[in-house]
Amino acid sequence: DMAETSDHHQGMSKPTERNAYVLPHRIDSYRSVVVDDALEDISPGNFQERLETSLDVWRLQGRRGVFLKLAIQQAGLIPIAVRLGFSFHHASKSGRNLVLTIWLPKDRPNNLPSGPTHFVGVAGVVMRGDGKILLVQEKSGPSARSKIWKLPGGLAEPRESIEEAVLREVLEETGVETKFVALTSVINLKPRKGNVARGGRSDLFCTCLLKSLQAYPTLSLQENEIKDAK
Amino acid sequence: DMAETSDHHQGMSKPTERNAYVLPHRIDSYRSVVVDDALEDISPGNFQERLETSLDVWRLQGRRGVFLKLAIQQAGLIPIAVRLGFSFHHASKSGRNLVLTIWLPKDRPNNLPSGPTHFVGVAGVVMRGDGKILLVQEKSGPSARSKIWKLPGGLAEPRESIEEAVLREVLEETGVETKFVALTSVINLKPRKGNVARGGRSDLFCTCLLKSLQAYPTLSLQENEIKDAK
Repeated sequence: DMAETSDHHQGMSKPTERNAYVLPHRIDSYRSVVVDDALEDISPGNFQERLETSLDVWRLQGRRGVFLKLAIQQAGLIPIAVRLGFSFHHASKSGRNLVLTIWLPKDRPNNLPSGPTHFVGVAGVVMRGDGKILLVQEKSGPSARSKIWKLPGGLAEPRESIEEAVLREVLEETGVETKFVALTSVINLKPRKGNVARGGRSDLFCTCLLKSLQAYPTLSLQENEIKDAK
Repeated sequence: DMAETSDHHQGMSKPTERNAYVLPHRIDSYRSVVVDDALEDISPGNFQERLETSLDVWRLQGRRGVFLKLAIQQAGLIPIAVRLGFSFHHASKSGRNLVLTIWLPKDRPNNLPSGPTHFVGVAGVVMRGDGKILLVQEKSGPSARSKIWKLPGGLAEPRESIEEAVLREVLEETGVETKFVALTSVINLKPRKGNVARGGRSDLFCTCLLKSLQAYPTLSLQENEIKDAK
C-alpha cells in the first residue's frame, strides 16, 4: 500500500524513514485507514509522534477516515489521540476496546458512519394449548416496582436476529421452548432523557408471535431476573 | 439520597467529610449510579481519590452499576477510571462524550445493559406511476466499484423509527417525496469480520414499500453520495 502511493511523497524529506514510522494499518473497503490490534508494542512516549506523522502521510495519500482501536490496557493513549483531533466512535461489546475516529479531508464533509445506533428489544407472545398467553413479572427495574405483568423478552445481542433473540429470551426467562411464527409489530421506543445507559439511542421493539413446542409447558424461571410467570 | 443511607456508614470514620467527597451523582431507575455532566470543575489531581472514595461509599450503599460520562476535554480522566476498574460502555452520537461503567456487587453477576447493539438499515421500494422501481448507484463504498444498482436507503439515525429513516433517506438520495405503505422484510445482516467501523454489530436491514407522492417524480440526486438514479 505504501509503495502504491510513494510518488506522492517527493516533496517530503526522507520518505522511507517517514513511512517506516507510520503506524501499522490497513485500508478498509470505504478507503478508510484502520489501526487495530497491532499496537501492542507501542509506548506512549513515541505514540504521539508516530500518530502525528501517520496522519500527515494519510492526508497526503487522500485517505478519508481513520479508525483507531485501542485496548483498555492502552487507555493512556486515548488523551494523546484526542489531542490530535480524534473523537470517540464506539466501545466493543466486551467494554475492553475503544474505537476512536478522525476525518482527514479538509475540503469534504465527514461522511463516516456513526457507531451502533439502536438497541433491538424483543418480546414474545407465546400461544399455549389453553389459549392463554405467557406473562412474567420482573425482579428488578422500573416494572418490578409497579408489579406489571409483561411479555417475556429483552434486548437482542449484537449479532442476533430478532428471531434468535426472542426464542433465547423466552427460553431464558421462562424455560419454555418455542418456535417463531411471525413478527407482529415493530415500534420505535425513543430513549428517555437522562437515561445515560441508553445513550440517546432508540429501542426498536419487536413483538413476535411464538408457539410453544409443548401445549402445556412446565415453567422454569430465570433466578436473577424473573419473579413470577403465568 | 445520602441522608437516606447515612446509617450505613457508622463503621466509617468521619462519614460527613467522606460523603462530601463523593462525586456529584444521581440514581437511575435501575438503582445504578450516574455521574454525568457535573464533572467540569474536577481536576485530574483529585479525581482518582474522589472516584476511589465514591466507589467505596456506593458499594456500602449496595449500589449496582456506575455509569461515568466524561467529555472529550476530560480524556485525561479516562486512564484513571480504567485503573479503578471501569470498562468502556458507549460513545455519544457526537463522539464528544464517552460513558464508562463498573459493576459494584462482588456477589452477583453483572447484569448491566450493554451499549447500543445494532445498526438499523432501511431501503425503500418506491412505486412509480409506470410500475417501475426507483434505483440508485452510489459514488463510494463497495457497491460503487461494482456499479451495482440498488434501492435507495441507508442507516437510521439513533432516534429515528424505520418509517422516518426510510422517508428521509429516499428524499435525501433522490429528491423523491414518498409515503410509507408497509414494512416488507426485516433481515439481520451480521457484520463482516475486520469491519472495525461496524464494531461487530449487526445491521437490522428493513425493506419498506413506499409510494411516490407524484406519479412521475423529478429526480434530484444527493451530490456527495449518489452517482445516478433511474
